[in-house]
Amino acid sequence: MAWKHRHLVDVDVFSEEDLYTVLEEAVRMEEVMKRPLKKVPALRGKVVANMFFEPSTRTRTSFELAEKFLSADVINWSSSGSSTAKGESLEDTAKTIEAMGVDAVVVRNKQVGTPEYLIKKLNGACVMNAGDGARAHPTQALLDLYTAWRHFGSLRGRKMAIVGDILHSRVARSDIYAFSKVGVQVVVSGPRSLVPLHVFDLAEYEPDVRKAVKGADMVYALRIQRERQEEGLFPSIDEYHNQWGINEEVLSHASKGAVVMHPGPMNRGVEIDSFVADGDRCLVLDQVKSGVAVRMALLFLYLAGGGDR
Amino acid sequence: MAWKHRHLVDVDVFSEEDLYTVLEEAVRMEEVMKRPLKKVPALRGKVVANMFFEPSTRTRTSFELAEKFLSADVINWSSSGSSTAKGESLEDTAKTIEAMGVDAVVVRNKQVGTPEYLIKKLNGACVMNAGDGARAHPTQALLDLYTAWRHFGSLRGRKMAIVGDILHSRVARSDIYAFSKVGVQVVVSGPRSLVPLHVFDLAEYEPDVRKAVKGADMVYALRIQRERQEEGLFPSIDEYHNQWGINEEVLSHASKGAVVMHPGPMNRGVEIDSFVADGDRCLVLDQVKSGVAVRMALLFLYLAGGGDR
Amino acid sequence: MAWKHRHLVDVDVFSEEDLYTVLEEAVRMEEVMKRPLKKVPALRGKVVANMFFEPSTRTRTSFELAEKFLSADVINWSSSGSSTAKGESLEDTAKTIEAMGVDAVVVRNKQVGTPEYLIKKLNGACVMNAGDGARAHPTQALLDLYTAWRHFGSLRGRKMAIVGDILHSRVARSDIYAFSKVGVQVVVSGPRSLVPLHVFDLAEYEPDVRKAVKGADMVYALRIQRERQEEGLFPSIDEYHNQWGINEEVLSHASKGAVVMHPGPMNRGVEIDSFVADGDRCLVLDQVKSGVAVRMALLFLYLAGGGDR
Repeated sequence: MAWKHRHLVDVDVFSEEDLYTVLEEAVRMEEVMKRPLKKVPALRGKVVANMFFEPSTRTRTSFELAEKFLSADVINWSSSGSSTAKGESLEDTAKTIEAMGVDAVVVRNKQVGTPEYLIKKLNGACVMNAGDGARAHPTQALLDLYTAWRHFGSLRGRKMAIVGDILHSRVARSDIYAFSKVGVQVVVSGPRSLVPLHVFDLAEYEPDVRKAVKGADMVYALRIQRERQEEGLFPSIDEYHNQWGINEEVLSHASKGAVVMHPGPMNRGVEIDSFVADGDRCLVLDQVKSGVAVRMALLFLYLAGGGDR
Repeated sequence: MAWKHRHLVDVDVFSEEDLYTVLEEAVRMEEVMKRPLKKVPALRGKVVANMFFEPSTRTRTSFELAEKFLSADVINWSSSGSSTAKGESLEDTAKTIEAMGVDAVVVRNKQVGTPEYLIKKLNGACVMNAGDGARAHPTQALLDLYTAWRHFGSLRGRKMAIVGDILHSRVARSDIYAFSKVGVQVVVSGPRSLVPLHVFDLAEYEPDVRKAVKGADMVYALRIQRERQEEGLFPSIDEYHNQWGINEEVLSHASKGAVVMHPGPMNRGVEIDSFVADGDRCLVLDQVKSGVAVRMALLFLYLAGGGDR
Repeated sequence: MAWKHRHLVDVDVFSEEDLYTVLEEAVRMEEVMKRPLKKVPALRGKVVANMFFEPSTRTRTSFELAEKFLSADVINWSSSGSSTAKGESLEDTAKTIEAMGVDAVVVRNKQVGTPEYLIKKLNGACVMNAGDGARAHPTQALLDLYTAWRHFGSLRGRKMAIVGDILHSRVARSDIYAFSKVGVQVVVSGPRSLVPLHVFDLAEYEPDVRKAVKGADMVYALRIQRERQEEGLFPSIDEYHNQWGINEEVLSHASKGAVVMHPGPMNRGVEIDSFVADGDRCLVLDQVKSGVAVRMALLFLYLAGGGDR
């Protein structure tokens, strides 16, 4: 069955069937990654440009490996020293890259809406959102979903607690869409000033982290971005750690087989204790591993149309 | 027929036949770029080092893609954090790279004459000039020539107006050589303080941009480098825009089917109006696309000797 | 015969037989580098991450080419803009990279002991030391050994003089281990304040450079790191040059067929005169060339187990 989407802006447009198509394709990609020869020729002769206008080695490297495992050619375009730094518009930069023969543009930018802007301006190259401002981070949501699904087998009826700065988190936003679509009950927790009103449709808000994680199967600690403190919206790091940091005691309120997730990089001792981060219940490294498989699945679906491998 | 040149310093040494050999090879490379599998094994097992000591994502990326489409291995060597930054001489840096097994060095440097310097010091690796100071930018001239040739079919007897800071422009200098060699009449326009005397052999100077573009088939707007203003040679940006900016009114003086070209990145509202930049007559994106094909052609001619693909 | 080591921290654990296994494998790799098609599929489908937390284009490029000549996929992870810059621990960064499917991590770091730390924390990925602080630089020692061995044929009974800042030199330390193991007599020379006590087991100290190089077959000039001056341990550059700089007069005290070596990049006019650096006896470029072959040999031994090519 052909994949019907042409670009990846966010997961909110995915049906439950779409989500499982990605997950099942990712299972096959994980098999490829386990082989001694981690490479398939699926995207040979295709070119993917990674345009990262915010620093990110983790997501960029994950995409880069996914592209290389599929035998695509890879161009890394970062902001420093580039034409964009010389004052060129994002539109001209992206059109230039497309004109050079690029098949897909993976873009991360501070500006919300960059992916749609590029889709409108470009002449057909596939656009994949690797994070736009505080809005969406669809590949993170899909790798989180994949990790949980592989761990639990089935997700419907389970409970997830997302803890942290919900307001500024593109991860929280995309995760809420993805997990609620497959029947997971999502509760968010964190300082009241950092929870947007609009999550209440799909997720409940519970300021007390112990109540929020009560009976949860998945406890998702968001990364605390220290620079938010300067904006006056944020409690002190100590205050945050004391009230919302995930430690063993907080976890004791969760369901018996509960797991801990985090998008990384972790601030140990702030949003997550080292004891939890290094414990058996923490799926952080599974998330990283899933990231490559899920991005391979997405690149394959979008660029090879989900056809033969 | 074998390609007789060993290094690419500037286009001034090319005969008309040489120029058309490159253009015709680039036609074949453009065909490769149109395939679903944009890759030929022509340079498999060859290594090209891109040594860019001035920031340039555009030209570097174009070379990098050309190298990858030909299956070469690519090393990117930039100045920051490199041995050169540690005080190593350019000679030692280049010899070191060559000793590592590099077959060709693509070099961009502020210092005029860097390519000849490297040719003298190196032990046989092919040197390709990707821009040396204000002197030469041969691959830009060849991609400009290719773009115009593909658009018009035949160039002899046509007129080209190059508008901007001619004095500091390696693009203008190389373009004047390339276009005049194939029988194009070249007129340059721009502030009198920014036109070198020596162009008068091959190109006429006309300060009034409307007179310069009169009857022109190609109007070439150079990029205004704002840092030149500090040197006291340059009018204000506003003054420049008013007198030499390319807009629809200026273009109305050109020939009926005239096209607009620009080496990029564009300063919209300075040397070129957005209306013109986005219009049908503007070949900027064709130039970018041609850039990859022309660089593939050059790499193939220099490194595979123009033999069998 | 299978290669028994799993990680490369330093050469001190290598037996003489191990050293010659690497050298002989490197001979085969040098043959590969001489072919028109400089590529073997030995590491196809393997991924090597180059994690350089200190600036180094020379060593990183040498590793990168070695990896590409063996058809491995390559990820370059530098400190600027990375998760480590965002405050992530080295452990989390390395575990993240390993989880993405990386088979080997080549690491350079200011912190002595980084390789052992990574070996302990990682889950099986091969760790290769590309320089840890002032402690060890095993691949440099092996390429130095290879260069001298190829030049002299046999090394037992020969004499080597290493001149410079021995105290802060990871190159000196690893070279002393490697060369003395194969029966070379090593003498070190340099300012008394810059010679550690513990070298006296394996190497003799002689402050007078003319006496140190007397009868030497190899004169090894270390790179003077100008930043050491600020620490108050170092004489002035002029003083150093006058007393320990390697020039023709100093070399006249060495053995008749003596060669000069240097790890690069050279400070001409400081630790080595240009006349010597450009002379026939200087093996600097042979060292660079050997570097790629030796790193290919090591990657092959560690990642392909020294099995069939």
